[in-house]
Amino acid sequence: MQRLKNRVTVCWLFLFPLIAFGQETGSAAKEKQVYPDVWCFTFGTPDLITPVTTRNIHPNLEGLQAVKKEMNCPVIPIAELTDRGVLIHIPLQKEELIYGLGLQLQSFQQRGSKKILRVNADPENNTGDSHAPVPFYVTTQGYGIFVDNARYLTCYLGNKRKKADAVNPELVSKESNDGWNSLINSYQRNGIAEESEVLIEVPMAKGVTVYVFGGPSMKDAVARYNLFAGGGVVPPKWGLGFWYRVNSDCTQEQLLTLADDFRNRGIPCDVLGLEPHWQTHSYSSSYVWSTKFPDPAGMLSELSKKNFRVNMWQQAFVHPTSPIYDDLKPWSGDYLVWNGLVPDFLTDEAKRIYRDYNKKMNVDIGISGFKADECDNSDFTGNWSFPECSNFPSGASGEQMHSLFGLRFQDAILSIFDEKQQRTYCLVRNSGALAAPYPFVLYSDLYNHHTFINAIAQSGFSGLLWTPEVRDASSKEDLIRRLQSTVFSPLAIINGWYLMNPPWKQLNRALNNLNQFDEHWEETEAICRDIIKLRMQFIPYLQAAFVNYQKKGIPPFRALILDYPDDKNLQNLNDQFMMGDQLMVVPLTAGEKSKSIYFPQGTWYDFFTGEKIDGGCRLTIDVPLDHIPVFVKAGSILPLATPTLSTDEPASNELTVRVYGSVSGFFSLYEDDGSFTPSFKEILLVWDASRQKGSIGTKGKQSDSYYNVVDWKVIH
Amino acid sequence: MQRLKNRVTVCWLFLFPLIAFGQETGSAAKEKQVYPDVWCFTFGTPDLITPVTTRNIHPNLEGLQAVKKEMNCPVIPIAELTDRGVLIHIPLQKEELIYGLGLQLQSFQQRGSKKILRVNADPENNTGDSHAPVPFYVTTQGYGIFVDNARYLTCYLGNKRKKADAVNPELVSKESNDGWNSLINSYQRNGIAEESEVLIEVPMAKGVTVYVFGGPSMKDAVARYNLFAGGGVVPPKWGLGFWYRVNSDCTQEQLLTLADDFRNRGIPCDVLGLEPHWQTHSYSSSYVWSTKFPDPAGMLSELSKKNFRVNMWQQAFVHPTSPIYDDLKPWSGDYLVWNGLVPDFLTDEAKRIYRDYNKKMNVDIGISGFKADECDNSDFTGNWSFPECSNFPSGASGEQMHSLFGLRFQDAILSIFDEKQQRTYCLVRNSGALAAPYPFVLYSDLYNHHTFINAIAQSGFSGLLWTPEVRDASSKEDLIRRLQSTVFSPLAIINGWYLMNPPWKQLNRALNNLNQFDEHWEETEAICRDIIKLRMQFIPYLQAAFVNYQKKGIPPFRALILDYPDDKNLQNLNDQFMMGDQLMVVPLTAGEKSKSIYFPQGTWYDFFTGEKIDGGCRLTIDVPLDHIPVFVKAGSILPLATPTLSTDEPASNELTVRVYGSVSGFFSLYEDDGSFTPSFKEILLVWDASRQKGSIGTKGKQSDSYYNVVDWKVIH
Repeated sequence: MQRLKNRVTVCWLFLFPLIAFGQETGSAAKEKQVYPDVWCFTFGTPDLITPVTTRNIHPNLEGLQAVKKEMNCPVIPIAELTDRGVLIHIPLQKEELIYGLGLQLQSFQQRGSKKILRVNADPENNTGDSHAPVPFYVTTQGYGIFVDNARYLTCYLGNKRKKADAVNPELVSKESNDGWNSLINSYQRNGIAEESEVLIEVPMAKGVTVYVFGGPSMKDAVARYNLFAGGGVVPPKWGLGFWYRVNSDCTQEQLLTLADDFRNRGIPCDVLGLEPHWQTHSYSSSYVWSTKFPDPAGMLSELSKKNFRVNMWQQAFVHPTSPIYDDLKPWSGDYLVWNGLVPDFLTDEAKRIYRDYNKKMNVDIGISGFKADECDNSDFTGNWSFPECSNFPSGASGEQMHSLFGLRFQDAILSIFDEKQQRTYCLVRNSGALAAPYPFVLYSDLYNHHTFINAIAQSGFSGLLWTPEVRDASSKEDLIRRLQSTVFSPLAIINGWYLMNPPWKQLNRALNNLNQFDEHWEETEAICRDIIKLRMQFIPYLQAAFVNYQKKGIPPFRALILDYPDDKNLQNLNDQFMMGDQLMVVPLTAGEKSKSIYFPQGTWYDFFTGEKIDGGCRLTIDVPLDHIPVFVKAGSILPLATPTLSTDEPASNELTVRVYGSVSGFFSLYEDDGSFTPSFKEILLVWDASRQKGSIGTKGKQSDSYYNVVDWKVIH
Repeated sequence: MQRLKNRVTVCWLFLFPLIAFGQETGSAAKEKQVYPDVWCFTFGTPDLITPVTTRNIHPNLEGLQAVKKEMNCPVIPIAELTDRGVLIHIPLQKEELIYGLGLQLQSFQQRGSKKILRVNADPENNTGDSHAPVPFYVTTQGYGIFVDNARYLTCYLGNKRKKADAVNPELVSKESNDGWNSLINSYQRNGIAEESEVLIEVPMAKGVTVYVFGGPSMKDAVARYNLFAGGGVVPPKWGLGFWYRVNSDCTQEQLLTLADDFRNRGIPCDVLGLEPHWQTHSYSSSYVWSTKFPDPAGMLSELSKKNFRVNMWQQAFVHPTSPIYDDLKPWSGDYLVWNGLVPDFLTDEAKRIYRDYNKKMNVDIGISGFKADECDNSDFTGNWSFPECSNFPSGASGEQMHSLFGLRFQDAILSIFDEKQQRTYCLVRNSGALAAPYPFVLYSDLYNHHTFINAIAQSGFSGLLWTPEVRDASSKEDLIRRLQSTVFSPLAIINGWYLMNPPWKQLNRALNNLNQFDEHWEETEAICRDIIKLRMQFIPYLQAAFVNYQKKGIPPFRALILDYPDDKNLQNLNDQFMMGDQLMVVPLTAGEKSKSIYFPQGTWYDFFTGEKIDGGCRLTIDVPLDHIPVFVKAGSILPLATPTLSTDEPASNELTVRVYGSVSGFFSLYEDDGSFTPSFKEILLVWDASRQKGSIGTKGKQSDSYYNVVDWKVIH
């Protein structure tokens, strides 16, 4: 392991008498390089329960070695122990900007703001409350900071000025009466133009561990954090297909009818999802099939034959009538949620009890994955979850457990599939630090389309995946725009949990549930079908992007600023994003007939029209309703699959390859045999511009592959 | 002083090892009756800096003695010391409801919710964030709880159930599949029907003091808390007149012209307000008159001759160019706000420096009061205030200072007027515990009319005064409805800080500032004039209500549930309120043409039409735009003043007295000579029903009074 080259002094500051901490005297912060270009600073006595100490997936050492740069530690955090906990200081340069802190639906660039990293099911304001707060951020100086702590951290992101740094009064103008503008300025001034620091307060702690991830670019730092987490997940192929969640009150018969309807109507679908009422009690959960499903095993088998996977809604809170209630009682927290136990998934016992039961009753009969709902906290809407002052057998407080609950619940679910040597892809409403390797995608009950689009790339700063799920829509236009967004996200889904029929049949919820369809529903369905087929075309390309996530830590969905770090026009751009290395996606929302789009330097091609665009500019482009602006970088070799009704159909491996511009080069595809530990055999799509000829093979040679190129198309 | 009769054991619970607290062992909570029917429970080692330890106004002992009931302590709080701080437990009975916790714009009844009591300038969600959080609540069991602490308390208000209290699984139905309703129920279930407890977590503390206020009614408990605070304020008569704040960029000349315009147009106005740009620097504040005001003393003198008082906007944060900057530097916190010092008003030095300067420069030349802006915290909008991890010379942390900053800034302002032996009435954007004696009224930059109406009575549960100020309006209807609300509040005000002309002349902001008036502005003005005149009529009545606030602790504006504690229909009623003892006010908002109004048991009279209504029912009543529904209790003797252009006009003491129903009785008016310590001589308006004759006098006798009854009217 690479040791730190230039050792720097890290100081403990003791500004206050440490009455609460007894007679300890100052001790130097321990600091070491723990992985190549990853440094760990230990201050005082860190908590025993943190994301790192409770992790179940190890760092991707091979990946970290592969990106080794042998740099010096780019920034030195210091910390002081106060009578309030630990206060971390990290310097900020002039104009240095900050991204990350987990899923932040309401914001993108973070410098100048205050964020409290608190798990919350209803993040309606830009407060730091989040389904998935993560104490990790990167800056435009090209490094990452990770505070390994599970308390609710308060982060002041570079806008607090100390009295000691006060301006010289002599240098200030005597009178500044520019009125309204001066007021607005005062409210918005956030000190970006000045040197400053990030302050992070860790409440009630006696010490803390801080990791620094080297760059030299932001993208490198994000990648290194993801590799430290274990490398990104690669979903099974079916996970990248189209998902549809059915009405919560749906019966076995209705579910089978709906599945047939998807096939008959030619709508691609890989995964059907069961919502809360498949079981006898949902809030909290019994995990016992309701009488509405007289033969779950038979139903799952029948659906499997038709190439459907089934995902199952669950809550972690265990209803008194659940068969695992008594066993879990000693391994749960001291407060109930909806009268149900809160399993302490930090204990092996709780994990085992949950795993053994759900494996036998659900996964063994064919359930392919779960939707882990309400594992976030509810502070102010219903306030249903356990209090921060709870205590758990593992020693975690309620506050710590809230920060870790989603992650460790994911571990419990994953342990079922690990035992079955089976991969999965799931939905979850709470996640946190070091989540990149987890086959779980975040969603929210909030529904603002703009914030949903922001989150696609914003979540990628912190090792998270996000889906802007479609539920219902205020208009046909809204439905189509939302559907376009979800098919260009990590998980393409309509969540029809309160609709008896797909929303394209009837947008009015009441009429939909009375089976009264819109007059022109088939027209709407046709547009939706085409959008879903678009998704199916991109699956091989997407899969390759996810293999990059695993091996190199590169987020498959990410902000443009990560790919073009020197372009200041991208610093606040949150309504466009990269999908993989070659595509820029620009979703629209209802009401927009055209879109002002920023094109980074270089040549771009319109995915639909092939039109060529010279970048380094902003253009306003008319966008018909059935188009979502997607642009391809010049030099791209882009594989597109034949759209099929499910990823199980062999035709899904038949490719049309588009070559953009005059390029000789290759694109790496990866075979996925669907096994628990797939080899991801690299398959090269090679284009020889001089001969205007393409070939498919391994490392340049012809070889067997399940992929088959049916056509090469050159776009100039 | 009355001692507690039935002494009860209060236990320290030590559930966790107290590592952080050294080797202390359990000690019994100290508990004593500190005033009649007021008990104090001391747990561990309470903070040195709290609302009580930093208070500058003493309890109203006479008032507390006068309402003595000699009851037993109605509820016993217990507390445990944890490694997170202190956790207080207070039992709750079935169906026991909770009110208070300071200004809570977004809510009314609190049981079932979680609230974090944190000062915040943008309380957009129902989180406990507030301009004026107060750790005081009352319950329908008729007692009050006050946690004397300045940290951000987390309050779980009766909806957390411990595992130890789990339901017996045998008693739960095996399957409950009632679908959508069951889900909604799950989210909204808040355990009101069950026995429970209030949990209050005091973070990082080593002890805490909890006060219990006896009833037997909620109104008694609120009153006792207000008397403990020092008794309610009585504004000077002019404070109850009409206020108008002028454009921030207004010059001396423009201000004088506007004042004349009010007089010429016959619009009552007692107070004009200067907004930020009267000074050379506003954010932070220099406290130096701008060149726009060449002769402030002359201007104030001229306005005074025309019976105008002038209120002055200020911020507590001291600009580098301020003459008091250097003196204040050692007596300020270690962080700046808008490059300005944050005075530590917990120190006598900071208070003195602020007082001496502002007395000399502003109050001595005629300023009558201040508007103390931005003394709340800004967490998530601009995030301009000092961090919670700040340190102050007094020893207060930033968190404690935020909870106390508004109160102690009010003290600093009050000290100017105390020194001048002069009363004042002011505006403030942050207040907190024990605020009843302060002549400060809260306002907010939020502007939802419904939440503004909610706050009128809701703030009254916790010793606060609130004005739903009018700024601009989306329509004439909106303007009129908002104006009706503000004239039935503790401070009647239009805040035209970004308008060059009163909003009735032109609602469009841009046109208003170009002096382009609406075609029908005189018509709108006439309606507004009548509404403001209505306010002027109620001043003697209002003043009497405020004297009750001072002597008896009864809030002048309050929720109906306080007056009718047994009527369950009032438990969530937040859009109607009592003004004094005789009037029920029901503001409307734009869009409402009629209103469903609840009438408590008894007979009511429509203030405008005299129509008689039998209560105990809900009625829908059409409400023309120029009416605000106001109802008078049968048996009321209601004095109405002759509306004047200012309260300085002698005609403002000429009364028409209305007698509602067949009643013999009296109403107490109070003379206010305007002095620093007025005698509030009680003047009785006596009606003899048998003789159908009224008289005015002291204790039933004819006597000299500045009040004069010009007419008696009987309404049957």
